[in-house]
Order: sequence, then C-alpha cells, then structure tokens
Amino acid sequence: MKLMAVTDNQHSMENLMSIILKIHEYVDYIQIREKSRTANEVYTLGKRLIDEGVAKEKLIINDRIDVATLLNIKNVHLPGNGLPVEQVKKLNSQYFAGVSVHSQEEAQIAQKNKADYVLYGHCFQTNSKKGKPPIELQSIKKIKKQLSIPIFVIGGITEDRVEQLADLGADGVAIMSAIFSSSNPLESVKKLNERCWRL
Amino acid sequence: MKLMAVTDNQHSMENLMSIILKIHEYVDYIQIREKSRTANEVYTLGKRLIDEGVAKEKLIINDRIDVATLLNIKNVHLPGNGLPVEQVKKLNSQYFAGVSVHSQEEAQIAQKNKADYVLYGHCFQTNSKKGKPPIELQSIKKIKKQLSIPIFVIGGITEDRVEQLADLGADGVAIMSAIFSSSNPLESVKKLNERCWRL
Repeated sequence: MKLMAVTDNQHSMENLMSIILKIHEYVDYIQIREKSRTANEVYTLGKRLIDEGVAKEKLIINDRIDVATLLNIKNVHLPGNGLPVEQVKKLNSQYFAGVSVHSQEEAQIAQKNKADYVLYGHCFQTNSKKGKPPIELQSIKKIKKQLSIPIFVIGGITEDRVEQLADLGADGVAIMSAIFSSSNPLESVKKLNERCWRL
Repeated sequence: MKLMAVTDNQHSMENLMSIILKIHEYVDYIQIREKSRTANEVYTLGKRLIDEGVAKEKLIINDRIDVATLLNIKNVHLPGNGLPVEQVKKLNSQYFAGVSVHSQEEAQIAQKNKADYVLYGHCFQTNSKKGKPPIELQSIKKIKKQLSIPIFVIGGITEDRVEQLADLGADGVAIMSAIFSSSNPLESVKKLNERCWRL
C-alpha cells in the first residue's frame, strides 16, 4: 500500500523543510498542500527540497500547476475547486494528476476525465474537517470496484487504521495530522511505512 | 497612454462578467486579479469572457500562470509575492509578463529579469492600500529614465490625475476603484479612455 504525506499548512517554512527532509525516504509521495502560502513561497519550498535531495518523483504539488511546471515536477494534485483535470492532461499528458473526490459519482467523473488517481475521504473524524460527517467506509469498496485508477484515502488515518483501509480496497493512504502534528514525525512515518509496506 | 482595468476582487462573478463585457472595448487591458477566488473560478471567468467575445490579447491573468496557460492567454501579471519573472520567461518567452514593483531598485531588477512591463505604485491614497504611504510622484520620472520597458502606474488614479501621470513619464495607468467601484463603470471608462487616448 502506498503512503502519501500531505503537508498541513500549519508550520513555518523552516519546520516544514526540516520534517520533510527527515521523512522523505520513508514515504512514496509528499503532497505540498500549503493553501495559505503565496506562489513564490511554494516555489521556494519545492526548490529547496529538491536542492536538499528530495526526489522530484516523490513530490506532488497541490493546486498550483504553474509551480509544478517551473520546478519540473510532473505530479500534481487538483483539489475540488481546482483546475479541470481534463484540461491539465490535455495541456501535457505527462502530468500525473490526482483529483480530490467526495462521492462515487465524482470518482467516476475524475477517471473519465483522465485523472491518474483519486483521493477520497474523509474517512474518519478529523480536526481539519470539523463538522462534516466522514464517509461510509464501505463506500471505498464500491468505488474501488468501479475504478481502474488507484484510490488513495484521506482523513483522520492513523497507523492502526491502515490495515482496515487496505482490506476495503484502498491503494494508498494520504496522511496529514498523524505525521505533521506528531511529536515525532520520523517515528510516526516509520511505523506507517512498516504497516503499508506489508499490505 | 495605455489604459488597464484591474478587477477589485469585490464583485460576484455575474457582476464582474457584466462590467467587463460593458467596458472591454474601451480599455487596452483587463487584468483579472481575483485573489480570493479559486483556480477553477478564475479559469471559468476567463473562459466565459473569451466565449463572450473579449479579446484574449486584452486579458492579463494575475498570479496564476497555469490558468493563463489553460486559457491560452499570453499576458500575465506577477505580484510581489508571485512566481519569479525570470523563470516564467524562461519557461516560455512568449509570455508578456508584468511585475509589480514598489521602488526604483525593484523596477530595475524586474527589467533585468526580463519583465515586459512594470506596475508601480501606489500613486495616491487608496482604500485598498490603507495605512501605507503612497509613492513620491517624482519617483515615476526617475524610474522611467532608467527603464526601457513600459511603466504602468496604479493606486487611487482618477480621470483628472491621468495627465499629471503622463507628464511624469508613465506609459499606462492601471485602474481599479475608479472603474469597478464606479456607479457607472461604462461612463467612467469612456471618460478615462478619452483622456488616455489624447496623451
């Protein structure tokens, strides 16, 4: 099972750099999702990470296709209110483009529009989605059956919940708080990596 | 003297569409600067304007080079915290890229980095820059002398201030409130157009 770390838009640039440099070897992807930062800040963060040895292939840029393009990063993630995936893929079919979805219907549309993966959730109650009810976990199974592209799941996922999600058909887990709010991100990622690797 | 209308991030999408469709024939450029909108909203706005007959050559997209690319619009404007102009021009030298500057030094750096124009201000007290002192108007003259690229000026510009700015060497005026907060945007733009055309 794939492991994606998703940044939480809560850290200083220095802290974020430091956490990512510690954990990058233990995850498949790091999604840079810093919604309140400027284009220049996201660009600078990406550039510094690459300069420090983080593999471009592991980095996914959320929303800002232009930043990804300038950094020569092919992995992009399109949020629900982001650019249309069919247009992004038409622009350059080399993009590996994920799309956030919240229902079976949205997942099917994303696949039809040439998304390379979907990110579905949120799976469990989480502070970042306070007040919104989580998905029915069984819906992961249903969506998985109808898709040929991978399904990543997100939202309140912790180490002990990974196996259950793999059983339901998820191809990957996307994790924010359990890594970036952990008192020891490296330790948390190592444990997650251990679980995912076996599934 | 060139006339650029700059959207003010204060209108509904419908109102914005309606104002731009009324005024577009009387301005040289319309800069879409809707900072609090999502990528999808800016993309949709641009697409609808083009579909309704606004010339692509008149549209300038602020900050989101990706949106400009998807719309096949070559004019982009980079705010102070935006992507580095030298990288944007390196990506595609066809971009006509403006840069916001606030000093003589920034203007020279922008030109060195291949900006196609600078946008300098703010010239006068304006609600959108409350608390920040305006520039010394004489600095326009100094900057103009040192640049070979056009200098647009912005900030609190009204019809009766255009001539003074032209005398100081400005090649264009960028106008937000006096158009988008006007009770009659078309009338205001026609008057501005009349002034600019003669200078």
